[in-house]
Amino acid sequence: MKIALAQLNYHIGDLVANTTDIVLNIKKAQQFNVDLLIFSEMSVCGYPPQDMLDYPEFVKRCMESAENISRICTDIGVIIGSPTINEKKNGKNLHNSALFLHQGQIKSIHNKTLLPDYDIYDEYRYFEPSNEYNLIEFKGKKIAVAICEDLWFNQPVENSFGRNFLYSESPLDKLMKLEPDLVAGLVATPFAASRIEAKKEVYRKNAEKYGVPFFIVNQVGANNDLIFEGGSLVVNHKGEVFDRLVFFEEDFQIYELDEVTDTRAHGIKLNEKDLVDMTFQALVLGVKDYFFKLGFKKAVIGLSGGIDSAVTAVLAVRALGHRNVEALILPSRYTSEGSIEDALKLAKNLDIGYHVIEIDRLFDTFNGMLKPLFSGLPEDNTEENIQARIRSNILMAFSNKFGHILLNTSNKSESAVGYTTLYGDMSGSLSVIGDVYKTRVYEMAKYINHNKEIIPDGILSRAPSAELKENQKDSDDLPEYELLDKILFQYIELNRSAGEIKKTGADPSLVDKIISLVNKSEYKRYQSPPVLRVSEKAFGPGRKMPLVAKI
Amino acid sequence: MKIALAQLNYHIGDLVANTTDIVLNIKKAQQFNVDLLIFSEMSVCGYPPQDMLDYPEFVKRCMESAENISRICTDIGVIIGSPTINEKKNGKNLHNSALFLHQGQIKSIHNKTLLPDYDIYDEYRYFEPSNEYNLIEFKGKKIAVAICEDLWFNQPVENSFGRNFLYSESPLDKLMKLEPDLVAGLVATPFAASRIEAKKEVYRKNAEKYGVPFFIVNQVGANNDLIFEGGSLVVNHKGEVFDRLVFFEEDFQIYELDEVTDTRAHGIKLNEKDLVDMTFQALVLGVKDYFFKLGFKKAVIGLSGGIDSAVTAVLAVRALGHRNVEALILPSRYTSEGSIEDALKLAKNLDIGYHVIEIDRLFDTFNGMLKPLFSGLPEDNTEENIQARIRSNILMAFSNKFGHILLNTSNKSESAVGYTTLYGDMSGSLSVIGDVYKTRVYEMAKYINHNKEIIPDGILSRAPSAELKENQKDSDDLPEYELLDKILFQYIELNRSAGEIKKTGADPSLVDKIISLVNKSEYKRYQSPPVLRVSEKAFGPGRKMPLVAKI
Repeated sequence: MKIALAQLNYHIGDLVANTTDIVLNIKKAQQFNVDLLIFSEMSVCGYPPQDMLDYPEFVKRCMESAENISRICTDIGVIIGSPTINEKKNGKNLHNSALFLHQGQIKSIHNKTLLPDYDIYDEYRYFEPSNEYNLIEFKGKKIAVAICEDLWFNQPVENSFGRNFLYSESPLDKLMKLEPDLVAGLVATPFAASRIEAKKEVYRKNAEKYGVPFFIVNQVGANNDLIFEGGSLVVNHKGEVFDRLVFFEEDFQIYELDEVTDTRAHGIKLNEKDLVDMTFQALVLGVKDYFFKLGFKKAVIGLSGGIDSAVTAVLAVRALGHRNVEALILPSRYTSEGSIEDALKLAKNLDIGYHVIEIDRLFDTFNGMLKPLFSGLPEDNTEENIQARIRSNILMAFSNKFGHILLNTSNKSESAVGYTTLYGDMSGSLSVIGDVYKTRVYEMAKYINHNKEIIPDGILSRAPSAELKENQKDSDDLPEYELLDKILFQYIELNRSAGEIKKTGADPSLVDKIISLVNKSEYKRYQSPPVLRVSEKAFGPGRKMPLVAKI
Repeated sequence: MKIALAQLNYHIGDLVANTTDIVLNIKKAQQFNVDLLIFSEMSVCGYPPQDMLDYPEFVKRCMESAENISRICTDIGVIIGSPTINEKKNGKNLHNSALFLHQGQIKSIHNKTLLPDYDIYDEYRYFEPSNEYNLIEFKGKKIAVAICEDLWFNQPVENSFGRNFLYSESPLDKLMKLEPDLVAGLVATPFAASRIEAKKEVYRKNAEKYGVPFFIVNQVGANNDLIFEGGSLVVNHKGEVFDRLVFFEEDFQIYELDEVTDTRAHGIKLNEKDLVDMTFQALVLGVKDYFFKLGFKKAVIGLSGGIDSAVTAVLAVRALGHRNVEALILPSRYTSEGSIEDALKLAKNLDIGYHVIEIDRLFDTFNGMLKPLFSGLPEDNTEENIQARIRSNILMAFSNKFGHILLNTSNKSESAVGYTTLYGDMSGSLSVIGDVYKTRVYEMAKYINHNKEIIPDGILSRAPSAELKENQKDSDDLPEYELLDKILFQYIELNRSAGEIKKTGADPSLVDKIISLVNKSEYKRYQSPPVLRVSEKAFGPGRKMPLVAKI
């Protein structure tokens, strides 16, 4: 039996484009006499469709697309993903389904049992869990179909609540009692640098445990804040990785079932350097798809001469091309000569268009107009924020006039502690590095420069500063980023309490201060642009903290 | 048996304050020789605690609070709500629990079965559903405990998917097999003007169906964007409303079980006028609690002379007192004399402080600085947005300097179609009327003026305008609000497709235009402040649309 995996980039809601892509891949598979072709979860509509699923008309159109696709599946067997309507009178409206297409029709529907509802997932919002398990009998083989979380029953729960597993029932156990010859896995698992190996291990251990080969198809491409890395996997019945499809690109591969026995692909283990590389590639894809799927071409970035805007600019140029990125350099009296020079140098290194607009006159006009109101009061962060908001106004004016999309340049560390100005440097349609801690931003800059200096050395060596007042340094208000990021990681990613973090040796008063800053900045992050997610816990919809909470 | 209901205003995460409130109410009940005292869902921590539940330390502190409270419950029986840890090795970490406290300890724990996961609810994110049903046997009576959604099994599903009920299993059916004498219902159902009657009907029909009295305790007060109206209910065994606790305030009432037989409270049915009144009161409470729970006292509002900022200012004054509200009036050359006069008149009517700052000089400075960049290009909405963002910068500077919280004044209609400026008039920590359609804002203004003119008549009679260019009217770009709101309501609240809306007689090209505007503005609303929710579908976390979707 010839089995093919189609790893495609779906556009949420664009049923015409998705159907076209799926049909083209079916035709390709037919040319190669493929018996079974597997697509990824929710392939008809793209994952995650979110509240579009609340519109009956949308679900109807998904089902019509699936039926249209089924018509060309005459000899070939094809598995696609789609929402389907729950035919029972009680329960949620929909199922998260895999549809087996053959003989020009939808031959069977296989519904997902385990519905992830944590972090960025909210599938129980839409779908009724299934409790029926059937195999596909096709050309003498018995095929089990499993959708994403159904493959993840044995995912260990990593927290201190004392749980073992997140679910009580294993869909794979049920399916295996029916003795399948292989498992077709349709997944949509978003990128998180630290999860690449863990994902592989889950699939590998399943194959080893049950002694059948697994064909896992992930989607590739970014939708909103989520980046899907592809990297679809074929694991043999011994639990060895037989092949992995490429990361961050569409791919199509064909396998002879009987030949998926030995270990073709060794050494797919990634090292730390690869993770920086993968995060870089993920972010490039994230920017690229955000623009492509919204029909935008051009970006504008405010270059400060600092490392965050520099790395963001490099990512934007890789994603969109240097002709499609423009920089505004907006110095004030507090901007150092070095910052301006480095910003200019970077723009030249990247060969992007740039304009320099000094903001002092505007700043003085604001101060003058506010003087009667503020008379006698000392300068404070008000004046700093005014500058940041003047810059935002200019960047947005450029964006409005020319149709360039403003990219946000905040990093995860400063976003965490609220070292940002709402409606100022927090502006932008997309936060490119908002899920990258400052220490990682430096790593990424070094990675970018590993062949030649793209980001001027001054940007890497200068002490971080917002340059919003005289001789300002980030370290005036914050601890060294190395230390800050360690505390933040424990609080945000590991859900540790202040007490638990202090036990790791961190300065107790510093821990309290940092956690207090994180909690007090929830109201700012609530209004943050969407953040491209590259970690296991990004700010945004995957982390819902009550704004008024007393913590 | 003497039964008391304690309808309290909990502050999420403030376990000390919540515990104190609960203990004071237990002591009061003890003074009146109450046998059973019922609090609302999640009373220990306040609802909804959201991702604070991901912190084991937080859950531990909730349990400790419950244990502390139990110590004073010697003779009295008390039912409180708290998260508890799922003791089984598999499944979600937590249960959403009701704890029966008696004889100085936690006597029994009753877990929620039906976990709402739609609109603003996401309980399956945290809780394992229960499938165990036990009564409390106490002083010769058998008491069934039901938490919120467990009372809502028979909630009809109102959409066109053809469902009957949202759930397959009725917890009340299971409990009734054990023949309880009464039901203690702990709920936390947020306000939506149109749902007040529907809620009452659900509880009423349950009582009628099962022939036992229901004691339903709701929380009161606002947490984040959600406003809880209180209005706790006592329904007798015939399904008649015996009593309703007050709306929008804390309340404490005692009932003799045997006397809860006839219909004490008639005519609690609300009419349309009441709904405007209730929406007004809800929003006042929403503003009040947002400030109180975050420790803020003072607000700043930009008064444009239009109806949205006028109604927002009135709400703010009712919530915070006139001494705690300041207005900035920020006219430009496009602001009509009438607008300025009316804004001043409103400020005087409300007896609030105000300052007038003309923004033309800043606008001219921006234009001058951008001239080299924009030379030869016609004016467009860029110049309009610059003005809105200058105003935002001034308002935020005032906020930063004096610690006043900026209130956002956008309404639901303009927010829906994106007739707003991101980082401009979309600024603010809290959107006060962002869930109120423009036509309803007018109704609210008339309601405010029903005794005497508070909002100057000119504001009600002048044609709506953003006043960002010469002779601008909202109707230049948008249809009449009467028509617009009807289309928006069907698309947003009823999830109807364009085709379905057209069938109701609306102009087809207009429907397409409006829906396209709604979809294209998702990126703006993503960065909107939290919106006080008073409808069944507010913008914000209860409506998750994919930003990059092709619709």
